Amino acid sequence: MLTAEIIATGSELLTPDRTDTNSLWLTERLNSIGIEVKLKTIVGDDDVRMEEAMRDALKRSSIVITTGGLGPTEDDVTRKVAARALNRRLQFNDAVLENIRAKFTRLNREMPEINSRQAMIVEGAQLLDNPHGSAPGMYIEADKGIVACLPGPPREMKPMFDNFVLPKLVARAGEVRVARRTLRVAGMGESAVDERIAPVYKLYTNPQTTILFNRSEIEVNLTATARTNVEAELLLDGLAGQIEERLGEAVFAFRGETMEQIVGMRLAVKGLTVATAESCTGGLIAERLTDVAGSSVYFMEGVVTYSNDAKIRSLGVPEDLIATHGAVSFQVAEAMAEGIRRRANVDYGLSVTGIAGPGGGTAEKPVGLVYIALADDTGVEHRRVILPGDRQLIRWRASQAALDFLRRRLL
Amino acid sequence: MLTAEIIATGSELLTPDRTDTNSLWLTERLNSIGIEVKLKTIVGDDDVRMEEAMRDALKRSSIVITTGGLGPTEDDVTRKVAARALNRRLQFNDAVLENIRAKFTRLNREMPEINSRQAMIVEGAQLLDNPHGSAPGMYIEADKGIVACLPGPPREMKPMFDNFVLPKLVARAGEVRVARRTLRVAGMGESAVDERIAPVYKLYTNPQTTILFNRSEIEVNLTATARTNVEAELLLDGLAGQIEERLGEAVFAFRGETMEQIVGMRLAVKGLTVATAESCTGGLIAERLTDVAGSSVYFMEGVVTYSNDAKIRSLGVPEDLIATHGAVSFQVAEAMAEGIRRRANVDYGLSVTGIAGPGGGTAEKPVGLVYIALADDTGVEHRRVILPGDRQLIRWRASQAALDFLRRRLL
Repeated sequence: MLTAEIIATGSELLTPDRTDTNSLWLTERLNSIGIEVKLKTIVGDDDVRMEEAMRDALKRSSIVITTGGLGPTEDDVTRKVAARALNRRLQFNDAVLENIRAKFTRLNREMPEINSRQAMIVEGAQLLDNPHGSAPGMYIEADKGIVACLPGPPREMKPMFDNFVLPKLVARAGEVRVARRTLRVAGMGESAVDERIAPVYKLYTNPQTTILFNRSEIEVNLTATARTNVEAELLLDGLAGQIEERLGEAVFAFRGETMEQIVGMRLAVKGLTVATAESCTGGLIAERLTDVAGSSVYFMEGVVTYSNDAKIRSLGVPEDLIATHGAVSFQVAEAMAEGIRRRANVDYGLSVTGIAGPGGGTAEKPVGLVYIALADDTGVEHRRVILPGDRQLIRWRASQAALDFLRRRLL
Repeated sequence: MLTAEIIATGSELLTPDRTDTNSLWLTERLNSIGIEVKLKTIVGDDDVRMEEAMRDALKRSSIVITTGGLGPTEDDVTRKVAARALNRRLQFNDAVLENIRAKFTRLNREMPEINSRQAMIVEGAQLLDNPHGSAPGMYIEADKGIVACLPGPPREMKPMFDNFVLPKLVARAGEVRVARRTLRVAGMGESAVDERIAPVYKLYTNPQTTILFNRSEIEVNLTATARTNVEAELLLDGLAGQIEERLGEAVFAFRGETMEQIVGMRLAVKGLTVATAESCTGGLIAERLTDVAGSSVYFMEGVVTYSNDAKIRSLGVPEDLIATHGAVSFQVAEAMAEGIRRRANVDYGLSVTGIAGPGGGTAEKPVGLVYIALADDTGVEHRRVILPGDRQLIRWRASQAALDFLRRRLL
C-alpha cells in the first residue's frame, strides 16, 4: 500500500493564529484512492529544516507532497530544497519564464525581475500548469519516491492536484479503496470501552481501529481498505457489528452522528415531543437539541430555572421540597421534569439540576454532582451522576448524560 | 535564542476531519517568553515514525514538546517512544499507579487494569501532575535537549503546561519578553475596522498588529517585544489606547474577555438582573450567560419558546400579534422581552426571534433575519439584523448581537 507525507511550508504557519489546512483537503483526496497519510510536517521558510524534512519523508514514504514556497521571493525555498533533497540540479527553463511573463502582460503589468526565480525547475520534473497563479508546480518521479510540489494558496493548489497529480497517483495506487466509520459511545469510560472491545478489534488489522476520548464521548474509528468501496464497507459492517454486540446500547451513533441528532431522529420518527428544564446546564440541552435543523417538530419549549424562585414559579416545584432537600436533589430534579412536562404539554419532560462549580460544592454535595430526571406518561425517574472536569466540561457532560437518558428511553 | 518543535501524536490527527490545534496555543505561550517554534510534526499512533520524529527534532531544536499518546491503551505510544529516543529505560512507578487508582476511587469506579500502563515513566523524568485526567505528564532534561510530554486533551494539556513547563522554560529563555493583547470588537465589519485603525497601527512595527475575523467577532491582536514584561505592557497600552479611540464602543474587551464575561461583569457591578426569551437561538444566550462562574447572581431565568404555543402560554405574547405579524417580527420580539421581564421580575428582559435556516426563509423574511428586543423599566426597544452564515453561525451571531445590545445599554 502506498503511503504519503505532506510538508506544508511557510513561516506564517508557525504562528499562533494560523495553521496548515491544505493538508486536510489533500488527506481526503489521498484517502479516497487508498493512499494513507502517515505524517505531516509544518516547516517555516527555512531551507535547511525543509531539506531535512523532505529527506526524512522520502526515507519513510513513497509519496511526498509539499505545499507552499513556490513564490518569487527569497523566502520561497521549495524549488532549491527539492533539488537538493533529490540530488538533482535546478535548471532555468525558458518556456516557463515566457509563460510567466505572458501572464503579467495579460494583466497589463510588467513582470518584476524577481519572478524569473520561478522559472528555475528541478531537473527531470514534469511541470504542472497553474492557471490561477504565476508559479508552476512540479511532479518528480525519483528513485527515492514521488515528490509533488504544489503552491500554497488553496485556489491554486486544489485544481493543480486534481488535474495533474491525482490521475498519476490513481494509476500507481491501483485498486485500493479506503472507507471509514465512526462509532460513538456514551455512558462508559475510555478504558472500559477498550477492555470490552480490544479482544475483538485486535483480531483484525483491516479494519484498523483507534479509540478516541473526546469530552464525554468515546469515538471508535474504523478504517478499512479493500479493492472496492463495497468490499471496504462490508469489512466495516462486520467489525462494527461485533463492537456493537460488545458495547450494546452504549453505542449511540454508527456514522459519526451527534447525540442531539440521534435523539432528534428518534423523537421525530416516533412523533414524540420533548421540553427541557435546566438548572446547572443553563440552556445547553435546549441549545443542543435545537442545533439540529427541523427540531421544531419535536422540541417545544425549554426553561432555564437558575434561581429557586424560577423553579417554584415556572415549574411548580414545591417550595418546601427545595427547603427540605436542596435545589440539587433528586426530588427537585423529578419535580422539575414533571413541571415542564405538564406545562409544555409534551411527551417527555427532561430536567437537570447540579453543581457545575467552581464554587458551591460541599462534602455531601460536591462539584460535579448532577441529578437528571425524565418524566413521561408512566411517571418520573432520575439518575445521579458525579461528573469530573471543570465548569464547562461538567455542564457539557451533564447535557450529554441527560440526552443519553432520553435516548435510551426511546430505544 | 531557544527554539522549540512540537510533535502532535494521534492517528485521528491524520484524517481529513481533524487536525492538531494544541500547537497554536502552545506556540502562543512559547512565543510569549521569546521561544520560537521552528517545526511542527503530526504523527499517528505509530511508534517507529514517532521515535524518528522525536530523534530528528532533538537534533534540530533545544526543546521538544509532544502532545497526546499518554492514554491507557495500546495506541498510546509516547511513553515508550520518549524512552527509546532518549536511550533511557521505562520504569514502573508505584506512586503514580496509586494516584491513578485514587482518581478512579473518588469517582466510585474501579481502575481498569490497562490504566496501570500509565504508571510507566521514563527514567529520570519529572512527573507533571494532571488534575484533569489520569495520565501524568513528563518533563525530561536530557543532554540532547528538553522533552516535555503532555496529554492530548486541551483541558489537561493547557494547565499542565502553564503550571509546570512554562516556569521551567522561562528560567531558561532569558531576557526577551513578548506580551500580547487581544481587543475584541462587535458590531463592525472586518474591513471597516481595518480602515479605521490601519493609519494608527501601521506606524508601529513593535507592537505588531494582526486582525482576525472569528465568527462574528473581530479580534485585533497586538504583540510587543521588550526586555521586561513591564516595558512590553507599556508598548501595548500605548497602541491599544489609540485603537480604542478610533473604534469607540465597538471594542468590548481589552484582555480577550468573552462577550458573556463582559456583560456579566457589568450586570454584577451594577447589581442588575436579566432573564432571556429565545426562539431561534434555542437557549444559546442563556447557555453563554451561565457559562460564566457566578452568573447566578445576575441571571435569573431563561425560556426557549420554540413553538408559538409556548410563546403565548409562557410569555403572554398575544395570539393575534403572532397571527398578524408572524412569530418572526419586531412586535413579537418586543412582546417576548416584556413577557420574560415581567414573569421573571428582573431589570432586563432580552429576547430573540428569527430564522436560523436552512429552511423557513421567504423573500420577505429571509434566512438570517433576526429581531432582538430589550425591555427595561423605561420600555422596550428592538433591533433588526440580517445575519450571514449557516444555521449554527446565524444562531451564534444572533446571540452575540443580543448580548451586545445589552452590553451597550449597560455602558
